[in-house]
Amino acid sequence: MGLIYLDNNATTKVDPNVLEAMLPYFKEEYANPSSIYDFAKRSNHAIKEARGVIKDFFNAENEKEIIFTSCGSESANTAIRGVLNMNKNKRHIITSKVEHPCVLNVYRALEKEGYKVDYIGVNSNGELDLAQLESAIDDDTALVSIMYANNETGVIFPIEKISQIIKSKNPETKFFVDAVQVTGKIPIDVQACGVDLMSISGHKFHAPKGIGALYVNSKALITPLIIGGHQERGKRAGTENVPYIVGMARAAELAMDNLKYEATEIRRLRDKLEANILKNVFNARINAGVVNRVPNTTNIGFEYIEGELILLHLSDLGICASSGSACTSGSLEPSHVLRAMNVPFTAIHGSIRFSLSKFTTENEIDYVCEKMPSIIEKLTNISPFQDELAALKRLKH
Amino acid sequence: MGLIYLDNNATTKVDPNVLEAMLPYFKEEYANPSSIYDFAKRSNHAIKEARGVIKDFFNAENEKEIIFTSCGSESANTAIRGVLNMNKNKRHIITSKVEHPCVLNVYRALEKEGYKVDYIGVNSNGELDLAQLESAIDDDTALVSIMYANNETGVIFPIEKISQIIKSKNPETKFFVDAVQVTGKIPIDVQACGVDLMSISGHKFHAPKGIGALYVNSKALITPLIIGGHQERGKRAGTENVPYIVGMARAAELAMDNLKYEATEIRRLRDKLEANILKNVFNARINAGVVNRVPNTTNIGFEYIEGELILLHLSDLGICASSGSACTSGSLEPSHVLRAMNVPFTAIHGSIRFSLSKFTTENEIDYVCEKMPSIIEKLTNISPFQDELAALKRLKH
Repeated sequence: MGLIYLDNNATTKVDPNVLEAMLPYFKEEYANPSSIYDFAKRSNHAIKEARGVIKDFFNAENEKEIIFTSCGSESANTAIRGVLNMNKNKRHIITSKVEHPCVLNVYRALEKEGYKVDYIGVNSNGELDLAQLESAIDDDTALVSIMYANNETGVIFPIEKISQIIKSKNPETKFFVDAVQVTGKIPIDVQACGVDLMSISGHKFHAPKGIGALYVNSKALITPLIIGGHQERGKRAGTENVPYIVGMARAAELAMDNLKYEATEIRRLRDKLEANILKNVFNARINAGVVNRVPNTTNIGFEYIEGELILLHLSDLGICASSGSACTSGSLEPSHVLRAMNVPFTAIHGSIRFSLSKFTTENEIDYVCEKMPSIIEKLTNISPFQDELAALKRLKH
Repeated sequence: MGLIYLDNNATTKVDPNVLEAMLPYFKEEYANPSSIYDFAKRSNHAIKEARGVIKDFFNAENEKEIIFTSCGSESANTAIRGVLNMNKNKRHIITSKVEHPCVLNVYRALEKEGYKVDYIGVNSNGELDLAQLESAIDDDTALVSIMYANNETGVIFPIEKISQIIKSKNPETKFFVDAVQVTGKIPIDVQACGVDLMSISGHKFHAPKGIGALYVNSKALITPLIIGGHQERGKRAGTENVPYIVGMARAAELAMDNLKYEATEIRRLRDKLEANILKNVFNARINAGVVNRVPNTTNIGFEYIEGELILLHLSDLGICASSGSACTSGSLEPSHVLRAMNVPFTAIHGSIRFSLSKFTTENEIDYVCEKMPSIIEKLTNISPFQDELAALKRLKH
C-alpha cells in the first residue's frame, strides 16, 4: 500500500499547489520586502496580498490585526507574553488542563515567575467545565487561554460561549484561543466568536513547517516577543519569510475551499474507521464524546494493551498514527488529556490517535480497517491482563 | 542588462542547489521529526545531519551547541534574553553604537526594564574603541554584545581580541557575537575566537528568509525565548522547519566552499567598483577604513547629494543598492553607523552601500561603473550646495 499517513494532527503534507505558489519566491523574487527599489515591491506586495487572505481566513476586521510568525509555538508565546506584559499589575491566568503541552509549558514557566494559573478540567467526553471557568474569573484575571479543539481527541470547545462568559464577568480579561488544531477543519470567525487573540500554524493545514500567524484584535495591545526591525508593524522583528507567507496564504485559500469536503467526506472516512474498529475489536472504545469533534480526528483506546506496540506494528505496515502529541513523543508519561478525561488507566496506555486529511483515501481507510483487528488481537493475546480481558469480552457479548 | 542585485547584505538569492536540497522535504519527506514511526526517522535524520554541518560552519565543539531558529533577530533575542535571564542579579550590558538596529532595539527595551547599557563608539574608520570597551567591563557586566562585522560598512571587528579583553577583566561575562553579516564572507571559528554565543541568519548566505541558528557554548546557559515542546533540547519550541534547516546546511556547505572565491574574486570586483567610482566621481569617498572589511561590501559617500535620489536612479536602471539597513528603510534618520563614525553630515545623506555576492558578474560591475558617474553628475548639478561642491572639486584637482 505504500505510506498511509494518518497523523495529520502532528503535521501535514505540503499541498503541491502551495509549493507551486512558493517557488517564484525561492527563485527570481528574492528581494527583501523592506528594500526601497522596484524589485522589492513585488515581495512587499506578495506579503500584503497574503495578509489579506489570512485576514479573511480568521474573518478579522482589519489586515493590521494579522501578525506573521514562525510557528504556532511562537504565536502562542507572543500572545501570552504580549498580553501579560501590557497588564503587569494583573497576575492571574486561566487555562485548561488539556491545552497543548507547548502552551501548558508556558504557563508552568509563568507560575515560576509568580503568576497564579487556574487549570480548568474536562468531563469524560472531553468537554470543558464552563461553571468552573466562570467561577475562576476575577478582577485580577489578565488572560483566559483555551484551545479551539483538542489535538488528541478532536473535541471542539464552545469558544463563543466561553467569550461571553469571560466578557460578562470581566470585560478587561483578554481571551486567547490556540486554534492550531481547527484550521482547515472547521470555519473560523474571530469576530463572531469574540476572541481577542488567536494562533494558527501553517503546517497543520498543508503549508510548510516554520510559518504561523497570530490574530490580535486591534483593541488588544501586546508587546513583541522578538524585538528588532519594524516588520509586522513592530510586533515581530525579522526579515519576512516571503515564500512561506505566500504558501500559508495559498494553503488558507485551499483550506477554505475544502471545508465542505472536510465536513462530509473526511468525516465519513473517519466515522467508517471508527465504526469498523468498534465493531471488530471488542476492547476498543472512543476516547471522547462523539458529537462535537473536528471531522478528521479519532482517539481510540484499546484496553489492556500498549499503545507504543500498536504504533510499531502499524509503522511496519507503513501506517502512521500516534499516541499523544508529537511534541511529547519519547515521554513515557500517559496522555495528560486522557487523564484529565478520567479515561481508565487500562485504556490510556493503549490509546491511538488517527487524524485524516484531504489526501486520505477510502482505500487507505479500508486497509487500516482490515489490518487493525489482527494487530490488536495479537497484542491482546500477549497482554498480562487476560482475566480482565475475558471479563470485558463477556460484558460486550 | 536586467536586474543587477548589489544589495546582498539585505538579503540574498536562494542558491538553486539549496532549493534542490529542500525540495524533497516539501514533497515526500513531510513527517514531523518528533513522531516515532519509521517515516519520521528520515526527517529526524536530516535535521541531525544539518546540525552537524552547522556545527562545522561555526567550528563548534559539539552539535548540542547549535540551536535552529527562525531568523537572525530570533537568534539575537534568544541569546540576549537567555543570558540575562540566567544571570538575573547582573544588570549591566555592553554593546556598540553601530550594532544592527534589530539588536540595538533589544537593548533600548532592556534599558526601559532597568538595565544599564554602555554603547561603545567607533573611530572614523569604523573601528571599535577597545580601550573604552575594556574600561566599561565590571563585576556587574552580564553580557558584552558586539557584531562580527558591520552591515553598512563591512568593517570587521577583532572578535578574538575582544574576547580576550572581556575574559581577562571578568571571566563570568558572556560574549555574544552577531555574525549575521560575516557568514559566507570570512571563515568563522567560535572556539578560536572565544565566543560564548553567536547568531547567524540563513538568508544572508543564499538560504531562504526565515531560518537562523544560534551557537551557544555548552558552558553558557540560556533560557528559551519560545517555550513549549522539547525541540532543540528544550531551547526553542516549535515543530522543526525541516526544509529550511536542510537548506541552510546546504547553503553553509556551499559558503564554506566559496570562501576563497569570496576573498579573491568578489573582493576584486568590489575593489574595481570602488576604484572606478573614486576615480571618476570627484565627490565620492569610501566610508570606512579600507583594510579590514568583508570582501563584498563597500559604503560610498557622495557629498552634497541625496542618497534616496541615487537609489531611485539606480532602481530605474535595474540596479539594487541601499542606504542603511533594509530594516530601517523608510526612516528619514541618517545612518546611526555613519554618524558614530563622524562621517561629515554632507556625505551621510548621500551614502550608498553596494554589497556583492557570488552571483555578481564582472559585466554587472562594469555596467554600474559606467552608469554611476553620469547619475552622480546629474544629481550634483541640481544640488543646492554648488559653492561647497566647487570648493571640493578644486581641492581634489
